[in-house]
Amino acid sequence: MELLLERDDDEPLDDHFQDECGVFGIYDHPEAAKLVYLGLYALQHRGQESAGIVSVEERIFMSHRDRGLVADVFHRPDLDRLKGDMSIGHVRYSTAGGSINSNNRQPIVVDTAQGGMAMAHNGNLVNAVTLRRQLERRGSIFQSTMDTEVIVHLTAISQRSNFIERLIEALHQLQGAYALVAMNERTVIGVRDPAGFRPLVLGRVGEKGYVLSSETCALNLIEAEFVRDIQPGEMVVIGPEGVSSFYPFPKRGKHLCIFEYIYFARPDSTIDGINVYEARKRIGAALFKDHPVEADVVVPVPDSGVPAALGFAQAADIPFELGIIRNHYVGRTFIEPQQSIRHFGVKIKLNPNRAILAGKRVVLVDDSIVRGTTSRKIVQMVRAAGAAEVHVRISSPPTTHPCFYGIDTPTRNELLAANHTVEQMREYITADSLAFLTLPGLYHAVNSATANGYCDACFSGDYPVAFPQHPEPVQLTLLKET
Amino acid sequence: MELLLERDDDEPLDDHFQDECGVFGIYDHPEAAKLVYLGLYALQHRGQESAGIVSVEERIFMSHRDRGLVADVFHRPDLDRLKGDMSIGHVRYSTAGGSINSNNRQPIVVDTAQGGMAMAHNGNLVNAVTLRRQLERRGSIFQSTMDTEVIVHLTAISQRSNFIERLIEALHQLQGAYALVAMNERTVIGVRDPAGFRPLVLGRVGEKGYVLSSETCALNLIEAEFVRDIQPGEMVVIGPEGVSSFYPFPKRGKHLCIFEYIYFARPDSTIDGINVYEARKRIGAALFKDHPVEADVVVPVPDSGVPAALGFAQAADIPFELGIIRNHYVGRTFIEPQQSIRHFGVKIKLNPNRAILAGKRVVLVDDSIVRGTTSRKIVQMVRAAGAAEVHVRISSPPTTHPCFYGIDTPTRNELLAANHTVEQMREYITADSLAFLTLPGLYHAVNSATANGYCDACFSGDYPVAFPQHPEPVQLTLLKET
Amino acid sequence: MELLLERDDDEPLDDHFQDECGVFGIYDHPEAAKLVYLGLYALQHRGQESAGIVSVEERIFMSHRDRGLVADVFHRPDLDRLKGDMSIGHVRYSTAGGSINSNNRQPIVVDTAQGGMAMAHNGNLVNAVTLRRQLERRGSIFQSTMDTEVIVHLTAISQRSNFIERLIEALHQLQGAYALVAMNERTVIGVRDPAGFRPLVLGRVGEKGYVLSSETCALNLIEAEFVRDIQPGEMVVIGPEGVSSFYPFPKRGKHLCIFEYIYFARPDSTIDGINVYEARKRIGAALFKDHPVEADVVVPVPDSGVPAALGFAQAADIPFELGIIRNHYVGRTFIEPQQSIRHFGVKIKLNPNRAILAGKRVVLVDDSIVRGTTSRKIVQMVRAAGAAEVHVRISSPPTTHPCFYGIDTPTRNELLAANHTVEQMREYITADSLAFLTLPGLYHAVNSATANGYCDACFSGDYPVAFPQHPEPVQLTLLKET
Amino acid sequence: MELLLERDDDEPLDDHFQDECGVFGIYDHPEAAKLVYLGLYALQHRGQESAGIVSVEERIFMSHRDRGLVADVFHRPDLDRLKGDMSIGHVRYSTAGGSINSNNRQPIVVDTAQGGMAMAHNGNLVNAVTLRRQLERRGSIFQSTMDTEVIVHLTAISQRSNFIERLIEALHQLQGAYALVAMNERTVIGVRDPAGFRPLVLGRVGEKGYVLSSETCALNLIEAEFVRDIQPGEMVVIGPEGVSSFYPFPKRGKHLCIFEYIYFARPDSTIDGINVYEARKRIGAALFKDHPVEADVVVPVPDSGVPAALGFAQAADIPFELGIIRNHYVGRTFIEPQQSIRHFGVKIKLNPNRAILAGKRVVLVDDSIVRGTTSRKIVQMVRAAGAAEVHVRISSPPTTHPCFYGIDTPTRNELLAANHTVEQMREYITADSLAFLTLPGLYHAVNSATANGYCDACFSGDYPVAFPQHPEPVQLTLLKET
Repeated sequence: MELLLERDDDEPLDDHFQDECGVFGIYDHPEAAKLVYLGLYALQHRGQESAGIVSVEERIFMSHRDRGLVADVFHRPDLDRLKGDMSIGHVRYSTAGGSINSNNRQPIVVDTAQGGMAMAHNGNLVNAVTLRRQLERRGSIFQSTMDTEVIVHLTAISQRSNFIERLIEALHQLQGAYALVAMNERTVIGVRDPAGFRPLVLGRVGEKGYVLSSETCALNLIEAEFVRDIQPGEMVVIGPEGVSSFYPFPKRGKHLCIFEYIYFARPDSTIDGINVYEARKRIGAALFKDHPVEADVVVPVPDSGVPAALGFAQAADIPFELGIIRNHYVGRTFIEPQQSIRHFGVKIKLNPNRAILAGKRVVLVDDSIVRGTTSRKIVQMVRAAGAAEVHVRISSPPTTHPCFYGIDTPTRNELLAANHTVEQMREYITADSLAFLTLPGLYHAVNSATANGYCDACFSGDYPVAFPQHPEPVQLTLLKET
Repeated sequence: MELLLERDDDEPLDDHFQDECGVFGIYDHPEAAKLVYLGLYALQHRGQESAGIVSVEERIFMSHRDRGLVADVFHRPDLDRLKGDMSIGHVRYSTAGGSINSNNRQPIVVDTAQGGMAMAHNGNLVNAVTLRRQLERRGSIFQSTMDTEVIVHLTAISQRSNFIERLIEALHQLQGAYALVAMNERTVIGVRDPAGFRPLVLGRVGEKGYVLSSETCALNLIEAEFVRDIQPGEMVVIGPEGVSSFYPFPKRGKHLCIFEYIYFARPDSTIDGINVYEARKRIGAALFKDHPVEADVVVPVPDSGVPAALGFAQAADIPFELGIIRNHYVGRTFIEPQQSIRHFGVKIKLNPNRAILAGKRVVLVDDSIVRGTTSRKIVQMVRAAGAAEVHVRISSPPTTHPCFYGIDTPTRNELLAANHTVEQMREYITADSLAFLTLPGLYHAVNSATANGYCDACFSGDYPVAFPQHPEPVQLTLLKET
Repeated sequence: MELLLERDDDEPLDDHFQDECGVFGIYDHPEAAKLVYLGLYALQHRGQESAGIVSVEERIFMSHRDRGLVADVFHRPDLDRLKGDMSIGHVRYSTAGGSINSNNRQPIVVDTAQGGMAMAHNGNLVNAVTLRRQLERRGSIFQSTMDTEVIVHLTAISQRSNFIERLIEALHQLQGAYALVAMNERTVIGVRDPAGFRPLVLGRVGEKGYVLSSETCALNLIEAEFVRDIQPGEMVVIGPEGVSSFYPFPKRGKHLCIFEYIYFARPDSTIDGINVYEARKRIGAALFKDHPVEADVVVPVPDSGVPAALGFAQAADIPFELGIIRNHYVGRTFIEPQQSIRHFGVKIKLNPNRAILAGKRVVLVDDSIVRGTTSRKIVQMVRAAGAAEVHVRISSPPTTHPCFYGIDTPTRNELLAANHTVEQMREYITADSLAFLTLPGLYHAVNSATANGYCDACFSGDYPVAFPQHPEPVQLTLLKET
Repeated sequence: MELLLERDDDEPLDDHFQDECGVFGIYDHPEAAKLVYLGLYALQHRGQESAGIVSVEERIFMSHRDRGLVADVFHRPDLDRLKGDMSIGHVRYSTAGGSINSNNRQPIVVDTAQGGMAMAHNGNLVNAVTLRRQLERRGSIFQSTMDTEVIVHLTAISQRSNFIERLIEALHQLQGAYALVAMNERTVIGVRDPAGFRPLVLGRVGEKGYVLSSETCALNLIEAEFVRDIQPGEMVVIGPEGVSSFYPFPKRGKHLCIFEYIYFARPDSTIDGINVYEARKRIGAALFKDHPVEADVVVPVPDSGVPAALGFAQAADIPFELGIIRNHYVGRTFIEPQQSIRHFGVKIKLNPNRAILAGKRVVLVDDSIVRGTTSRKIVQMVRAAGAAEVHVRISSPPTTHPCFYGIDTPTRNELLAANHTVEQMREYITADSLAFLTLPGLYHAVNSATANGYCDACFSGDYPVAFPQHPEPVQLTLLKET
């Protein structure tokens, strides 16, 4: 059986919520596209399926977009052809299925009555289908299934007199999550939706250039200087006149996706003033405080569980040990022997170290349980390596609801926590004990007394941006490119 | 110096007019996409740059489009994913430049208010820029520079009640050349523009299936039966109710591109009742009759010059010999030594056979002279191989005007015949004599007393479909994908 | 069913004897490897499976060898790395099977006590297994199944004092066919076996350089000047002292493979003083003289049958027509629909032109019938295109015996002519008449009164070099690299 | 500037000693090659340049070997072709240079008088050049520059009566380091040299199969059971009669490469009874004991420094923090902007987390300093991220001598520690303090009172196996395949 990394038996190998994208943009730098290339490389954790860069020079928009990792998609000649001192780029997460729509390539680039325009989007619109139907009814055609194409159409049909106003008119019609980086022939624009679901930061680079990035970790590699987070509901326009800031939306509450701190963002990023690594450590400490356990070792499920496990171990004063080793040479597919191997999909990535685990009471720290299948395999592997007890501690509350704001989650039916008590979950994953971080513990860890300022819908079911309860049936013509 | 096949020094290696495309479609066959694949393979001479196939099943449109030859673009898994019993495809000619716009992939596939739609186009609209500007002004966005996208937009914005009427409304706005194959979820449609510039035929395949093809040569490979030529100005709709024929345009004269007979079409095709090979032979005979010469051998410039040379030789009763051998293993690029080789670009394809040529009075038959650079090199090569005399006979009239109906031609300035007398041209290509077929000779060869029924604008400057003499300055934003 | 081009049902698509290789070498040219690259490209018809080049500079041997066509195997960086002013290369024919031994890469390069050495070989040794067994018994190891490795071993174990003498000692032990190009750090060497089965020519290139090539057609492209054929039994050593000629073998009769004139060589080559194209035309004329027929058209099976058909037509005074068109865009594999197509394997390459064939009495000229399967399909295709009569004329005698001198032929059992009368063959291929060139007719066509000077074993069974009637059972360990 | 990952300016990016190889073998399992594939994947850290697998079935040896990571080199069809229930494989480390000799592919496979034979080798022979010269003088030819080819030749020329005795005779002539896995048509053999420089273990797999592996970590993935370490000087023969053990060499001291514990081996492996992760933690603790420091955080240089840093932190009771984040999506090449970026080569892999480092006294734990260039950059990066003090602690003694036993090390001149005092080194890397583990501390950490049982030549200059002080000048003909 040829095994896509994402599939193990009928289960995804990587049983996480999946981030949708990372966006990056450069204004006024002689090697704009090369900096975008490096920025995307540093944002690779936000999307490994495909990568794209668009640059513009003298009204000509040049693009290169393909499947694969940044380092594989772009070669020197590709970057050399991406001329100009303005450029934006995009990385996209790895879908579960084998077949993807290669028309869904970002950044999207179009020609309009007002000239060329490129756009890259991280997030998800909850009214995309409705908008698309409206647009189609007036004669718009769609060449992809991306929300980005909706935004571009709305901008193009606006009758406002300039690009900024047209884009604002388009944005006013959007509901949902979006961190956008857009570009016309003169300006690079960054927008964070009114709720600020997804992060976006502004920096400076070179002598006079500017940079927009999903995360701060991408600034360091290109020697850019962090200026500030783009604010929820803010549109930043970077052009010949410098940086202008617009707040085109009515003021409303901020709802940063709390999962960025739990799993999505790189630990060396700082989002809205809070360092991700530090947040994860505090989360681990809070997890211990909420659910202490007597044990001999604290072992993270690598790599994402490491900072929380460290926080847990330090709070608990239990030794922290790398009792599970991750193989970092994992490719996209693996060939499994016919005489199949137990837990092959997990083993190909993770190997328990019997010397650390044998005879020990082990606290296993992971960041989330989605379907539970991977957790179950890991617990069994750790026990097979001799662990006397396996206590699973999850550095987030139970994920009971799907996300509609840009994260690829299973349906509610597939979410283990949606339909099972913690005790049933413990039994399923065969752990000696199982505990989740509480929502208050989580907010405490991100320096917040309450859920204020965050979206925690996947834990609480409180969706901060309404979406059609009985949405217009989705009957999009699927445009699949193989 | 790395040499793109298309470039020799500053000249194109293959100094021909270049055909734009071939189109192919299948209705109601269980292996529709595979038949389209074979059809495109048989139409490969009409375009070697890229190939694409779209199929539809249960309202889902699947596509696979990429650069390269048909046999390289499609592998078994690609074809297996192109499900459904309706499918259309497209091959595109090889551009001169190294960089192409990969967004310009055909068939184009879009989602509209009325469902999915795919379209492939051979030809060129003379009012495309005007239409595009109008469309953009009403808010349409363009993701490519293809005329096809214009047609699709016009179809999508039509307010008519069904697809056929919307498509007709769109077609009414087009001026220029188009042989279209289109598809929605229920029907496959073929259209030939009112002048019938480009060929398109209808056939039957399998038990109940239909086929549309640019040329008849593609019918044989898939064991399809030729039914008839689509008529100029005819739209054929193939659907569950069978084949319907529409003539949505006012009647006007037919203007089949005469160059199809001279060079573009495959010799085993029959267009509008005239077999191409036979036409070329008659052309060769007419060429001799117009411009006889005393000589020892008639030698074609392979491969395109062969049938005319044969006709010339038979009419002249001079032995026909393959005095120039063509290497058929030519790849896309060749690496030339720094210490460069005379006529490298021609030599990599053609090698004169001294044994046949030495001491002989040679009639060299070629189909056209565009810039003249290749002819000059071939004459010099043949003379260097010992020919006593080199008499060049061209199986078409002097090409003095560019084409605006779908053929890639140089500007008028670059056309040797536009600015030089035949004697000047003879001198330039260093031939002992040079003669072109006359226009009357040409029409006689295609069984026509007059130019009636044909477009001969490249020879005569009589453009049968008007186009803007001072066209709106083209300021399209170039969308280049590398 | 995925169809390797070489297979149609259980039959090879290209039912020809297959040439084994082409060899090429350059001495003393600043761009030696680039010239070898061009030389191999011109010899591509002698082998399409793989290509390799070795160069040497300051005792360092650099090589690049891979599967595929010359234009695909070598890219600029590969050639740039092949430094030095001496270089040799090799192209290898396309095997029927999908899996090949990639260790069988030529030129072979080895390090020996006397320094590095490279060798490329066209031909076949009849005592290779015996020699290999002897070498293995003294401790030699083999990393491939190539005869070339045998020759290299024999050279390495020789106790003679210099490379030339060691090579000669090795050659003395060989029986069979070989045209070799070898190279050590100071010299390039060409050898033609005593019978001269395979061609090899010497030329001059650049200011002071020399070239060795299987055929003269490769000299033209690099602007080399033909000097002379290497003689059977001659070894030419090209080194700092110029060109030396050795005749290390006892004088014996020359036996050039007659099939080079019939099919293998390119028509623009001249072998041992006879131009291949002219020979083929005389062969066609002789074929008519031996087996005249009343007919309306003479049609070649393209491309190899063209010159003989032309000779036939001129002798018969019957019009020569290209009634079958060959598609030159054939790739390595084709995907056949499940609902299979009659004669798919032939149709993918050849298409009959009904306009030329319908109602005509057709003489179909091909160069040989090996298994007969392809001929049968072509005859049926031509008849299906409306031919009134189909008379097959083969421009060689019946091939009744396999070749042991370097040509890939089926076993005797598979050779149609070995087990069937001409009448039975005619019936099998469904022709109205079938006739083969006679051996005397063949020799007459190559200006020879008798078989003297040629190997015609495949027609006559007269094998000029003896080989083990009951050879040591071949028990080579197969070393297959996938 | 296109940057090979291995090069940063004029310095290697990964300034470590580099392991040479990993070996793996399977006896008697129906999916032998697939298990070898998984085994190699788990040994990927021992070599990322190339991978190869050989299997044997009914005397036919099949091989697939290519450049690249295991997951990239092997696809399902490759593995399907590697039939048989015996198979061996090899991974090879990544060389510094861009051009490699693709003839140096392992396992080597040869045909000899006694049948086929395959061999894979981890280590280095100190008398390889001498043996090669002797072999060449008797007529052996070399197609690579690998020591493995020397061993194979020695085996082939032995006059002993069976394969085991011939191999033993060959081994007797070898001096140096070798962990071998070899295979003929009936047996799989594992050998560890008398000093036991490189690890090799035996396991059981499936119902009756056996496995040989460089490290135990590769056993887990294929569900094999660890049986025991192969002993220094032991040859294990696995055949139809089961497992036989031979000790063909005179008894001598064991000298396991101590660097396996410091850096090479995967932390979840256990070598000669000592778990690598635990050893590294003890090393870290010993490092603190030898060189304590007052500090706020202990930060590892990821990934190799992590366990030692953890041991250091626990012993020191200073918080352990992942203050430097490693990007695991690193490809083989990166394109650097022309306007170059400071420390680009290090930054592309490592990013300091300012939130953790700013204002802190940082202990930076790394495993070794080779040239010092990378350490210098990391220290500067950490300081630029705000660290108040940077104290570097190296979990090995200063590396003052090159390795001649299979590890790719720079020459002595390039080893920073060979020519500088610790204080000079500290100054060079710009640290506030620098300290190395002492040799006694190191031995204590691996449970040994003395150097007995280990090779520590790279620290001490005590080379346990003599090698030519003035070796025969190496004048190997370089056989470079690009």
